[in-house]
Amino acid sequence: GSSGSESSKDSSRCSTPVLDAERHERLREKMRRRQDSGDRWFSLEFFPPRTANAAVNLISRFDRMGAGGPLFIDVTWHPAGDPGSDKETSSMIIANTAVNYCGLETILHMTCCNQTKDDITGHLQKAKRLGLKNIMALRGDPAGEEWEEEVDGFNYAVDLVKHIRNEFDDYFDICVAGYPKGHPEAESYEADLKHLKEKVLAGADFIITQLFFRSETFLKFMKDCQAIGITCPIIPGIFPIQGYHSLRQLVKLSKLEVPQEIKDVIEPIKDNDAAIRNYGIELAVSMCRELLDSGVVHGLHFYTLNREVATTEVLKRLGLWKEDPRRPLPWAVSAHPKRRVEDVRPIFWASRPKSYIYRTQEWDDFPNGRWGNSSSPAFGELKDYYLFYLKSKSPREELLKMWGEELTGEESVFEVFTCYITGEPNKNGHKVTCMPWNDDPLATETNLLKEQLEKVNRRGILTINSQPNINGKPSTDPIVGWGPSGGYVFQKAYLEFFTSSEIVTALLKVLKKYESRVNYHIVNVKGQNITNAPDLQPNAVTWGIFPGREIIQPTVVDPVSFLSWKDEAFALWIEQWAKLYEEESPSRMIIQYIHDNYYLVNLVDNDFPLENCLWQVVDDTFELLNSPAQNQQEAVKRLATQ
Amino acid sequence: GSSGSESSKDSSRCSTPVLDAERHERLREKMRRRQDSGDRWFSLEFFPPRTANAAVNLISRFDRMGAGGPLFIDVTWHPAGDPGSDKETSSMIIANTAVNYCGLETILHMTCCNQTKDDITGHLQKAKRLGLKNIMALRGDPAGEEWEEEVDGFNYAVDLVKHIRNEFDDYFDICVAGYPKGHPEAESYEADLKHLKEKVLAGADFIITQLFFRSETFLKFMKDCQAIGITCPIIPGIFPIQGYHSLRQLVKLSKLEVPQEIKDVIEPIKDNDAAIRNYGIELAVSMCRELLDSGVVHGLHFYTLNREVATTEVLKRLGLWKEDPRRPLPWAVSAHPKRRVEDVRPIFWASRPKSYIYRTQEWDDFPNGRWGNSSSPAFGELKDYYLFYLKSKSPREELLKMWGEELTGEESVFEVFTCYITGEPNKNGHKVTCMPWNDDPLATETNLLKEQLEKVNRRGILTINSQPNINGKPSTDPIVGWGPSGGYVFQKAYLEFFTSSEIVTALLKVLKKYESRVNYHIVNVKGQNITNAPDLQPNAVTWGIFPGREIIQPTVVDPVSFLSWKDEAFALWIEQWAKLYEEESPSRMIIQYIHDNYYLVNLVDNDFPLENCLWQVVDDTFELLNSPAQNQQEAVKRLATQ
Repeated sequence: GSSGSESSKDSSRCSTPVLDAERHERLREKMRRRQDSGDRWFSLEFFPPRTANAAVNLISRFDRMGAGGPLFIDVTWHPAGDPGSDKETSSMIIANTAVNYCGLETILHMTCCNQTKDDITGHLQKAKRLGLKNIMALRGDPAGEEWEEEVDGFNYAVDLVKHIRNEFDDYFDICVAGYPKGHPEAESYEADLKHLKEKVLAGADFIITQLFFRSETFLKFMKDCQAIGITCPIIPGIFPIQGYHSLRQLVKLSKLEVPQEIKDVIEPIKDNDAAIRNYGIELAVSMCRELLDSGVVHGLHFYTLNREVATTEVLKRLGLWKEDPRRPLPWAVSAHPKRRVEDVRPIFWASRPKSYIYRTQEWDDFPNGRWGNSSSPAFGELKDYYLFYLKSKSPREELLKMWGEELTGEESVFEVFTCYITGEPNKNGHKVTCMPWNDDPLATETNLLKEQLEKVNRRGILTINSQPNINGKPSTDPIVGWGPSGGYVFQKAYLEFFTSSEIVTALLKVLKKYESRVNYHIVNVKGQNITNAPDLQPNAVTWGIFPGREIIQPTVVDPVSFLSWKDEAFALWIEQWAKLYEEESPSRMIIQYIHDNYYLVNLVDNDFPLENCLWQVVDDTFELLNSPAQNQQEAVKRLATQ
Repeated sequence: GSSGSESSKDSSRCSTPVLDAERHERLREKMRRRQDSGDRWFSLEFFPPRTANAAVNLISRFDRMGAGGPLFIDVTWHPAGDPGSDKETSSMIIANTAVNYCGLETILHMTCCNQTKDDITGHLQKAKRLGLKNIMALRGDPAGEEWEEEVDGFNYAVDLVKHIRNEFDDYFDICVAGYPKGHPEAESYEADLKHLKEKVLAGADFIITQLFFRSETFLKFMKDCQAIGITCPIIPGIFPIQGYHSLRQLVKLSKLEVPQEIKDVIEPIKDNDAAIRNYGIELAVSMCRELLDSGVVHGLHFYTLNREVATTEVLKRLGLWKEDPRRPLPWAVSAHPKRRVEDVRPIFWASRPKSYIYRTQEWDDFPNGRWGNSSSPAFGELKDYYLFYLKSKSPREELLKMWGEELTGEESVFEVFTCYITGEPNKNGHKVTCMPWNDDPLATETNLLKEQLEKVNRRGILTINSQPNINGKPSTDPIVGWGPSGGYVFQKAYLEFFTSSEIVTALLKVLKKYESRVNYHIVNVKGQNITNAPDLQPNAVTWGIFPGREIIQPTVVDPVSFLSWKDEAFALWIEQWAKLYEEESPSRMIIQYIHDNYYLVNLVDNDFPLENCLWQVVDDTFELLNSPAQNQQEAVKRLATQ
């Protein structure tokens, strides 16, 4: 650290503690800061998928590859795929999903040829509205064989760059393409460099290059760019060879020539996919090492072809893949600029962050500091449970195997919940890896509670969300830590479950004994609501104390939003589970019965420094239920005075 | 507790956690809630003082008697004393001080006869502007012997009540006077009751009665009021007899007759003040007991005559004096309605809360939740250090005895600081019970640090503010607790001191070793400012976690407001200390030297769960200073790598 810095009285004040500086920077600032600090980075290019199912898969690939820490991803513009539309496979919607639902800094490609100014402006306005902040400005391929300039239209990428700056001022960060071997249609390499400089002068912030096969190609290109006065960042585009056919196709499209030494290796093994991929990985790693060792390259851009293995492997070997277990906040942040200050959410959507983002997408302000300040607490309705980014990754047949082809009673539902908790296969030998309320296996943190959760689920306390109490663990703790290092994180124990009205009746009697310690909200599908929360105030259940900062309390139990969550949580029984079965079938009726008659309960143990009492609450409830009817009155009394 | 309450989706949300419901209620609601819950309460009446010195004393009496927990105090209207003016002895300014600086719910009396509507409206507007919320509407005594009704003026208190309701709608809570024996000028007891009912119908919220000598008098009056349909609270006015002459004078003014049985006791002991006071206390206690035992009296109003002993004694014997060591927040709250949501302040003014309130009185919004949200961080300048409510309670001669008739060097200043910390008399045998930065003896909490503070002050680390680290003590802890019960409070260790530039130089070297753990701000009178605070963000140093609520962080170290505090802290050297001495005198020059050359330093140890490292920082600094010059370089190295 430095010994201190001079600061003046006039310095502006932040309205919310800056936990993660990158969250407040635009892409070009992030790039600059990484370069200044000597941190090396990478980025990933994807193209929009052809089918809705492929879109679901791509989104989970975003989540997985996002975990490696790309500085940004980019999504290509697919003119034939209605790229600016609202289709789930459009470039626009894929980029929107990456930004808003996966929290990734994203560049949307956009091509301009064969499009009117109004079309382009419309696309850009839509992109801005969706929270996209970066555009890769490209000419695109002309429609016909022979291309003719349009007098009033967009003929070159530079026209698009100018248009963006004219119409949107400095709102977007603009990226343009560089051609290390010159654009195939350019008169000459030198003429192409001049075109590139024009694009930069028109307002481009940085350059990503077309793929190339030798590090010298890029390093020469970079030197030539600098020689004619291009000073913005130039990022080499890396294409790990992943197969014989994809290489041939790409070479054809890009009109590049594969160097003889590469051809010599590939041709003999062209039918051995694994061998070619391994070779491609070796080749990419060694070229990337040369680039990084040159000292002038700070970031690498990967053409993934929407595949994971090769790129991830190259990044891991280069030491650039940074699966940082630390989280800036306990929940996944969104990259929409509107949500930059957001730092508190209700705990209910902990396993459904995309649904939370969807239901709050119309908010103009997001709560920060404390939930109570939210000026706009109305949640959007979640009617379409099949939105592709909210949909289960598993197909119907798989869900049936996990959740039961045929249910025989409420107990078979208990069994599904129990198998999800334990990770053991169900009686048909299938593991239950997701639930309607949670598309992923049990979180590491929840694993801390596994034993107790198993016990209570077996008995009909159907848990869907929980967290252990934490009394000041380091913010770098691999399981419960979040935020910058040097801090301490805290949690109140939380337990949320569905359960029968019989159990609720006993539970309410038991809760009297814990009145001052445990806050509860108990609600059924009709909205009948029982709570002891004071004045409907939110209860902070996760908070962190950091050096030199105000306190961050990123999750709360909010009585008002619990009622919005309740609608969603109950609907998931029907939308995701009951509808797997035939109408009027016994299985469907069992789920429908639970939906209609069970209660959704949440419990918070306010005494976070003591041992979590919520398991005792549940034990007491079962004790009360198991005492013979004539003894129940006494059991109530005894429990109430313990 | 109750088993739970139904709550609806539409319930409004609070923007800030309600820690102390009373802070958000108006007086009539507080009164109603106390009555509903069966809590008994008291209130205290004072009159404005005649001199500025008496005003200083009255304000400290407010602080002391405020600690007993009155529901409100009231300040009489003194027509001869320019009651609506800005004089420090005016009724208006005394009431203003009680509300804003002592945090007391206050009723300002106002009389209307011999005043124009415009006068009255002006007074009321001013009262509202100052944050006064309650008016006792009275007729007042006519100027001449024989009183004549004015056609267009205010002739009766009821005119004033109507006027307040007409002009200020429901803004004020209005109190009126009741006469248990009938008003001396009324035609009859019955006619007077009718006048009282008119006042209530015109908009009065409650009634305080004139004094009386027998509980039956009040209970009959109350019954008679109820019989004619007066349903608002009626509060008995209690006058503990405190001396023969004050009794005679009051009886004369109020035209009341002292019952024979009281005269019989008093006359024989009329020259024995103590005996009369003791009798008065006995009498008041037994009458109050009768009133409370009647079951219809919930609160008692005391005519204090600006004296403390008798009223306090009566209240203690009745069990109504509630010196509740619990604090709603770690600092004294103000009762101005604008400040209702205020729940975070910079720690710097911890010992000068009245100055903080003064310097922020023009703010329209007060930070709540977090300091960073403050939209108006500009502090008013503190030019007049002799404002009566900021002034030291001790006269000049006493200050000189404490702080030194003659200073011989910086060391004699160190000695003053040390004596203040230890509580030991100085070499002339005088205890140092206040300092320019702190008008009261060392706080109980600071006492926890006494031993270390003594050690460092002796060596020229002149501490003016500090707190120990606290890692989750119960909110009911008698020393560091605050807020409702059932919570946990936390603190980061804090140390603030003046010290020489020599020590600062060494300290800065030492602080490198603590860079990630200790935040510091070091500033001199010219504003040269050295800090390692990230992005000028505030650092929360006191916070509390409560059942069912968001997190409260009532004190912060804010880099920006530290610079405003700095101006005040340095000025106090001159205004309160240097100016005790002749111009050009050596003593004055010593203080001036310190003012001109010392630095103001604050240190925060962010690792609150570990042992406070700030003492180690100071020890390391002295170790560095004490190592011989040739060894200093090595000492620096050694310390930096420990």
